Amino acid sequence: MSNAPNLQQNRYKADLREVRFLLFEQFKLDQILGQGPFEAWGPDEVQMVVDEAYKFSCEVLGPLNAVGDRTGCRLEGGQVYTPPGFKEAWNKLYEAGWMAVSAEPEYGGQGGPFTLHITIQEFMSGANSAFIMYPGLAFGAAEVIQLFGTDAQKEHYLRTMYGGKWGGTMCLTEPQAGSDVGSSRTTAKKLPDGKYAIRGTKIFISGGDHDCAENIVHLVLARVDNAPAGTKGLSLFIVPKVRTNADGSLGEANDVTVGAIEHKMGINGSATCVLNFGENDGCVGELVGTVENQGMSQMFRMMNGARISVGLQGVAVASAAYLNALEYARDRKQGPSINNWKDATAPRVAIVEHPDVRRMLLDMKSRVEGIRALIIKLTRHFDMTRVLQGKDDEQALYHQGQVDLLVPLVKAYGSDQGFRVCETAIQTYGGAGYIKDYPVEQYCRDAKVFSIYEGTNHIQAMDLVGRKLGQRGGANLQGFLGDVAAFVKANEKHPVLGKAVKELGEAQEAVAGTAMRLLGWFQMGKMPMVPLSANRFLEMMSETAVAWLLLDAAKIALDAQEKLPAGDESASERAFYEGKKHTALYYALNVLPHVRLSAEILGREDSSALEISTESFATV
Amino acid sequence: MSNAPNLQQNRYKADLREVRFLLFEQFKLDQILGQGPFEAWGPDEVQMVVDEAYKFSCEVLGPLNAVGDRTGCRLEGGQVYTPPGFKEAWNKLYEAGWMAVSAEPEYGGQGGPFTLHITIQEFMSGANSAFIMYPGLAFGAAEVIQLFGTDAQKEHYLRTMYGGKWGGTMCLTEPQAGSDVGSSRTTAKKLPDGKYAIRGTKIFISGGDHDCAENIVHLVLARVDNAPAGTKGLSLFIVPKVRTNADGSLGEANDVTVGAIEHKMGINGSATCVLNFGENDGCVGELVGTVENQGMSQMFRMMNGARISVGLQGVAVASAAYLNALEYARDRKQGPSINNWKDATAPRVAIVEHPDVRRMLLDMKSRVEGIRALIIKLTRHFDMTRVLQGKDDEQALYHQGQVDLLVPLVKAYGSDQGFRVCETAIQTYGGAGYIKDYPVEQYCRDAKVFSIYEGTNHIQAMDLVGRKLGQRGGANLQGFLGDVAAFVKANEKHPVLGKAVKELGEAQEAVAGTAMRLLGWFQMGKMPMVPLSANRFLEMMSETAVAWLLLDAAKIALDAQEKLPAGDESASERAFYEGKKHTALYYALNVLPHVRLSAEILGREDSSALEISTESFATV
Repeated sequence: MSNAPNLQQNRYKADLREVRFLLFEQFKLDQILGQGPFEAWGPDEVQMVVDEAYKFSCEVLGPLNAVGDRTGCRLEGGQVYTPPGFKEAWNKLYEAGWMAVSAEPEYGGQGGPFTLHITIQEFMSGANSAFIMYPGLAFGAAEVIQLFGTDAQKEHYLRTMYGGKWGGTMCLTEPQAGSDVGSSRTTAKKLPDGKYAIRGTKIFISGGDHDCAENIVHLVLARVDNAPAGTKGLSLFIVPKVRTNADGSLGEANDVTVGAIEHKMGINGSATCVLNFGENDGCVGELVGTVENQGMSQMFRMMNGARISVGLQGVAVASAAYLNALEYARDRKQGPSINNWKDATAPRVAIVEHPDVRRMLLDMKSRVEGIRALIIKLTRHFDMTRVLQGKDDEQALYHQGQVDLLVPLVKAYGSDQGFRVCETAIQTYGGAGYIKDYPVEQYCRDAKVFSIYEGTNHIQAMDLVGRKLGQRGGANLQGFLGDVAAFVKANEKHPVLGKAVKELGEAQEAVAGTAMRLLGWFQMGKMPMVPLSANRFLEMMSETAVAWLLLDAAKIALDAQEKLPAGDESASERAFYEGKKHTALYYALNVLPHVRLSAEILGREDSSALEISTESFATV
Repeated sequence: MSNAPNLQQNRYKADLREVRFLLFEQFKLDQILGQGPFEAWGPDEVQMVVDEAYKFSCEVLGPLNAVGDRTGCRLEGGQVYTPPGFKEAWNKLYEAGWMAVSAEPEYGGQGGPFTLHITIQEFMSGANSAFIMYPGLAFGAAEVIQLFGTDAQKEHYLRTMYGGKWGGTMCLTEPQAGSDVGSSRTTAKKLPDGKYAIRGTKIFISGGDHDCAENIVHLVLARVDNAPAGTKGLSLFIVPKVRTNADGSLGEANDVTVGAIEHKMGINGSATCVLNFGENDGCVGELVGTVENQGMSQMFRMMNGARISVGLQGVAVASAAYLNALEYARDRKQGPSINNWKDATAPRVAIVEHPDVRRMLLDMKSRVEGIRALIIKLTRHFDMTRVLQGKDDEQALYHQGQVDLLVPLVKAYGSDQGFRVCETAIQTYGGAGYIKDYPVEQYCRDAKVFSIYEGTNHIQAMDLVGRKLGQRGGANLQGFLGDVAAFVKANEKHPVLGKAVKELGEAQEAVAGTAMRLLGWFQMGKMPMVPLSANRFLEMMSETAVAWLLLDAAKIALDAQEKLPAGDESASERAFYEGKKHTALYYALNVLPHVRLSAEILGREDSSALEISTESFATV
């Protein structure tokens, strides 16, 4: 394009005022700092980590985002090489300790709140979604070993993995076993020394090989001899790329080979590998912990974290897309103001002045901020389980239940809407959005995978309706519905937000009613209606949760706004709080009503998609 | 991926039974064949063209789709080179006469219905959306010359352009003039010989240069001396890449240079150019026709066709994505049937058996078939204007009015939903959809531009609410609403479709009511509410139109089904007609209700997006 883009337009950025609002005004992180597991942390320490991690993301990771996309990864002589700069960024990331903020001090971590970890992970995911896959999976694999490994395993693996000396992956998918992970065929044969010979092929392994760390610790789902069929017979194994000695030094190679790397729509800086284990009968692994056939439940714990990270990727990339589109809309002049639309000589205005551009911007803003709030709501619940552990087990269970309930919402709604926001960002740019001089087309390509990996969004929806709704006798759902209802009751007469809160009340009832309907289908032998309707139900619940948290934020903002001193020095704070109000009203009045409609639609029990014969889809 | 894709899975395909249904059962093309302008055409000729053009699309264009994407275009020594095979495909396309099916016999065309032209253009757009840009724009440019050029211009340009000897483009956009085309700065200075010296820079010019034809005829919007500001002062010029002699031979170069080609998210086989006219003061053009300052209205005629083509690109690519996803879903085995979901040893089934996959497939099918029907509805109206011309001018006006009214719906809804279908197709594939071994990720990248070029979809929405609704004193809208109402009245008690038809009736009322509301805003000084709401209104009207045509198809299919002989030989026909029923019910009961909700939402007049200050969007 002849008006060459300012490189600043490609820059990753986040709104730190928004982060501060979430952490300290809406979710009151200070209430758990300085005590229990977070004794060493105060608001200043949190703010410093946020500021420094943001700086790191902008300066180190952001500039590698387009490079990683254009260069991609390369498989040469059996080794994967990451794009230029990735290895250096990996080293800087671990030197600064950004992956260990919430890890246990015992293993080199800093023992901070998970909320803080996720907050800074958003910066890194937004700055470079492909890069963050490598350390993100290493972190997740280490967490599994920390939760389920033997003491010796923890001692051997955790410091090196949290410290970035060794990477990590999770290896579930096989050619015939994607969503149907129970069909895995990879085998594990017990050896005389207690270890296992691993044999099989895994595909779509993110970061399955790379050159950032000296070793990679694969966590591999495999089936031991005579194990039950399906998911119940899967065990989880630690399978390093290079065998390691007791002192942590490297031994010989472990017969883990890279069959291929995929060429993808996006996240090209992340190597997606076909991995062959034991092609030459030389692959050895050790069981995570001491009991076989626990692989699925162990993997689920890892997946919880991974699924939050994917929802976070959705909002992170979407946020970057939104803020770049906003900058473009403020700079780009086109057309006269709507108030002068008939005057061909009227001055041209920045497109941010045009109603439809404002609509797109506010739509993006509301989805980004609402989903981000939902993620912080979740992590705040998680941090509470740690604070309450051993002190108030019942309350801790409530918080753990909310974590479990919200994970599928965060993963599926975060990824679906993340993609939608990127699409809207492209539209905001117009033609410029479609060309590679601007960052949004890459954001859109990168974001498409989020609805697929770590369990497709339908798997999330089935997790929600098939497992989470009934958990603890339905108490998790009741807890959620009760929290929303309490907010509605307290605020339905609010002078500014009242009509929006009323809409939230109707949405809450629609969710409750539809949950009962789903339960009825389970019991009335209408089982196929459940998966047919699960995605829509997940969306209903997500929209309700997001509207709730946006309205909650708006109420806090309006209260804070009242306390601001008059005058110009408060102008930017006032504008910030005003934005919160408009964001909540927009979402509640334009998006949230879908919940009511969805309940009505599901109530009709249209089963056309079940009734249509496979032959009727097309004659070819 | 280790299970390497069958190349057949990459193949373009269309459902010819569906095409036959549309042409002959739903839109009864035979009623206008063999008479008036279509005297030379019968159903057999139409069917033969369909079959052969489909074969050509599959065999010649389809295999170049991925090639064009991966190779892209190349600018070397001022000349653009298209991907390998494009030039040969261009030659074959014109040898076979596929671009001249509906062109005037006087200029080498075959004089067939526009409906037939569009039907076969769908195959070509679906098989290779990037390639078809080159001949598509040449066709559009030729049409403008045919409509507005002098006899000498027609004589000089039309045969060469319809015949593919020369290409063509439309040059509107400039760096500061995108949606705001009235801000164009390109100038035209009258020369003593009556021609004009052209000077200026145009950007985002599709097919702005290429190596397929020996010359390219650019249609350039420019402003003559002392012309009025804005769109009223724009004139349209014929500016060939190479000057031509009276006998059609080529003269010297015309000082049209390629400044750059864009690197894009998709349609990489289509060269998107920056064109500099008259950089060395050597660019000469001639006015289209004889009157200055008619450029916008002339360009609008060209844009009508171009906008239909873009909506068609949306449905074409979406249809290819749907049919590929369907094939994958029939082949790919994963997980047990929902009826055996608790049995880990149950046989694995093709994913087409899973309820959520069926939901995605039926959702895609309904959007693809509904929008395709809308396009054929439009072209059928257009063909009627030609049949009725000079015979029944009032009826001809009605049909022309429907064409005008439906163009923005086809362009915007076709492109938006085309992208949505591609997204759903990727999700149907799962991980495989994200990798380049399968065609859907390219479809999705290609499709993103359709909502942007030829007027962004907001420009379409403003065209609808700002121009089309009030055209002929509102008669076009009344005609449309009347047609829908008549269908509702005739079918609201249909035993199978009744409840869906009732929903259509409510949608029709919601559209009518919202149109009045928009009119009210114009009159009540609430002008900014109009652009704020225009996209949603366009979607409401499109959903209503699509549901109407799907239900109409279902009714025809159910009637036809009753007449089928019993027995196996009718099985595939029965399945086809059954599919029409389920498609219509699905769309009417799951998508169409949004129209009611949208009317309700617009009725609230939420203006958050207008009220929020620009500073409130973010603090960065």
